[in-house]
Amino acid sequence: MFEKVLIANRGEIALRVHRACQEMGISTVAIHSTADENAMHVRLADESVCIGPPSAADSYLNIPAIISACEITGADAVHPGYGFLSENARFADILDEHGITFIGPSADHIRLMGDKIAAKTTVKRLGIPVVPGSDGAVTNDIEAKAIAEEIGYPVLVKAAAGGGGRGMKVARNAKELPHALSNARTEAKAAFGDDALYMEKYLGQPRHIEVQVIADSHGNVAHMGERDCSLQRRHQKVLEEAPSPALNAEARAKIGDIVARAIEGLGYLGVGTVEFLYENGEFYFIEMNTRLQVEHPVTEMITGIDLVREQIRIAAGLEMSFRQEDVTFTGHAIECRINAENARTFVPSPGTIRDFHTPGGLGVRVDSGAYGGYRIPPYYDSLIGKLIVHGRNRNECLMRLRRALNEFVVDGVDTTIPLFKDLINEPDFMNGDYHIHWLEDFLAKL
Amino acid sequence: MFEKVLIANRGEIALRVHRACQEMGISTVAIHSTADENAMHVRLADESVCIGPPSAADSYLNIPAIISACEITGADAVHPGYGFLSENARFADILDEHGITFIGPSADHIRLMGDKIAAKTTVKRLGIPVVPGSDGAVTNDIEAKAIAEEIGYPVLVKAAAGGGGRGMKVARNAKELPHALSNARTEAKAAFGDDALYMEKYLGQPRHIEVQVIADSHGNVAHMGERDCSLQRRHQKVLEEAPSPALNAEARAKIGDIVARAIEGLGYLGVGTVEFLYENGEFYFIEMNTRLQVEHPVTEMITGIDLVREQIRIAAGLEMSFRQEDVTFTGHAIECRINAENARTFVPSPGTIRDFHTPGGLGVRVDSGAYGGYRIPPYYDSLIGKLIVHGRNRNECLMRLRRALNEFVVDGVDTTIPLFKDLINEPDFMNGDYHIHWLEDFLAKL
Repeated sequence: MFEKVLIANRGEIALRVHRACQEMGISTVAIHSTADENAMHVRLADESVCIGPPSAADSYLNIPAIISACEITGADAVHPGYGFLSENARFADILDEHGITFIGPSADHIRLMGDKIAAKTTVKRLGIPVVPGSDGAVTNDIEAKAIAEEIGYPVLVKAAAGGGGRGMKVARNAKELPHALSNARTEAKAAFGDDALYMEKYLGQPRHIEVQVIADSHGNVAHMGERDCSLQRRHQKVLEEAPSPALNAEARAKIGDIVARAIEGLGYLGVGTVEFLYENGEFYFIEMNTRLQVEHPVTEMITGIDLVREQIRIAAGLEMSFRQEDVTFTGHAIECRINAENARTFVPSPGTIRDFHTPGGLGVRVDSGAYGGYRIPPYYDSLIGKLIVHGRNRNECLMRLRRALNEFVVDGVDTTIPLFKDLINEPDFMNGDYHIHWLEDFLAKL
Repeated sequence: MFEKVLIANRGEIALRVHRACQEMGISTVAIHSTADENAMHVRLADESVCIGPPSAADSYLNIPAIISACEITGADAVHPGYGFLSENARFADILDEHGITFIGPSADHIRLMGDKIAAKTTVKRLGIPVVPGSDGAVTNDIEAKAIAEEIGYPVLVKAAAGGGGRGMKVARNAKELPHALSNARTEAKAAFGDDALYMEKYLGQPRHIEVQVIADSHGNVAHMGERDCSLQRRHQKVLEEAPSPALNAEARAKIGDIVARAIEGLGYLGVGTVEFLYENGEFYFIEMNTRLQVEHPVTEMITGIDLVREQIRIAAGLEMSFRQEDVTFTGHAIECRINAENARTFVPSPGTIRDFHTPGGLGVRVDSGAYGGYRIPPYYDSLIGKLIVHGRNRNECLMRLRRALNEFVVDGVDTTIPLFKDLINEPDFMNGDYHIHWLEDFLAKL
């Protein structure tokens, strides 16, 4: 086992990794920018190294400085958390060159899944369902019509060179298709100088459901069920839950098994998440994240398995501490991302937290590096903590969430806590009846 | 179900009950003395009533004032917590006369178990093991010898009229018996004017192990395993864990079943705890507590069952939400009682808490009414919170406890946190190898 792990991150996830290390008897090294010298993870770590000025490019993304910190402190492994360098294959390679273990998958797997087209081709080959569509550019309207009929309406016509929604049109039926094609072609040509189009099945109100997987170097692979992360604002997850209100045990086992087999085929090591859109009982691959997710605690709460501990074990060459048959799902868990933002305008609210009082009691977990007197720096994302609640079933979990939100005090800055208090009174949310556009619609109504 | 529950207690247990009520959609009424007007449970409750001056006799034990508070607020039930009026049969009777439900067992059961001699006779009849001894006074040395041989050495000779250790002698073998009898007789005569003696089996280094039971008015009875509360100072529990390191699954099921059958025979309703001394594989009844225990969270952590919720359901005439076969024991839990006391001298340390920062993360629960800026009043017991930690096994739980203790910040008053940090480095404790005198021996060594 490692003797000393350097945590190449900040905020709640740095603290999360520190906790796992301490519980395993591993020393920790915190790195931090000058803006984070009073951060909780810096205070609690066994050692800390200041690696640069506030700008992330000069500190948390500064690979030479991080390597130096490893060498100065004698760290034998690095945990990258999420964000920053966590999916940077070059960072994994450089650590390897220095004989330091990257706690994560191989650089090759990071690279493969970072290339979204290669990732899709690869996972499709391994049996993971992808969005049906044209396998490449559509050359003419007749071909387009044939493809549309094969994949079924509505279809999405997209600029091959595109992005950001430009050159993207929906055709709900055969009648709308020629118009959608010509409009998309015109937009694509204007925006990208290239009118090549491709087509995909259009999903109107899908859910975002992701499957947690884990594999070790001893041939053990398991899935750990799914998380429903459909509550999003501007593609950012806001609240996550496990299990998904949309899946039953059979559907869960089926997609879990498909993903676990694919991961096995991939020869993947460590924890990872395969993200899907889900509509009308079908899963459609979005991407694979080759790192710990922000929302990993909801999986921990219903399985009792410490994902960071498993990551560290696997990176050290040990077997994961459980097998697929040991994974049971008990009750229901919901995570709220507490951001230092105005709950209406979502304008960030950095500044000093005067009082910070977290809820407690049965079934309540808080992962946060904040504390009374903590000054939230303006340089990084606004996540200041996560409230995770567990109950024997979804209704118990929701009632517990309501009372935990009522107890949570963050004085001195705006937070998203009022948003969750609003959500908990919404029948659609209470019934689990929502999709990836639902939250934006709800916010528009407020 | 009740609409409004009055919580006839203070501190962390008042907050605990409030949380359960809120999660069940029940309104709460806090009562408080003038010393507790800024207490957390008062701030969070839907309504609050000041019922008297700081002295407990004039406030938390003031039955007329509490009945008035019920009538003013229209509360339809009272939860007594632990301590104060929780085992006061008269209070239960008076509430009943006023048409208010006492959330607890019947007044008759409280009364029966409050009479320690009647309790012992009753539970013995119901099959619960008691300390073997003379069934009454020992008249002469020959009879004493016969009894001693029957129950086995060592034996304890006790003054029938006695108490406080006076007139109490241990005889380790037949040779020591005559001397023990004559000494005890002399001391008893001098101390109580009565030289009548009785005899019991002497337990040298027993553990304190208690069994949690629950029964509803629909004929359902279950035990919820045991708690080991052997770490005591001056007969006060300091740290509790579940399961007991001394029991295996078979022993647990056996004593659990004996207790459940006895509770069934008793016609008991609600939650209760049967306390035992345990030595050499044998259980010996101490007493039954007819209320929620301070240490109930360790049972909640390993069973996932909310005991306060069940109490409320049962008092409302509903069925408990589970059956014996649903009770499973997952992992290990330890509770540390955080007292505002000096960790060496145990002198209470009331005063204002400057900073209060609780540990978080996976497997950590804090039940506390304290907060930054809270002034601990000098009038009540010194418990300011409970740190409860859960892990998949005892070792994981201990490692997690260590890191949680390292995160816990209570500035401004002394607390018992340093004591637990010392304990966690003691091999005997780490190995689960301790008994009811162990902590006092450990403290004497410090």
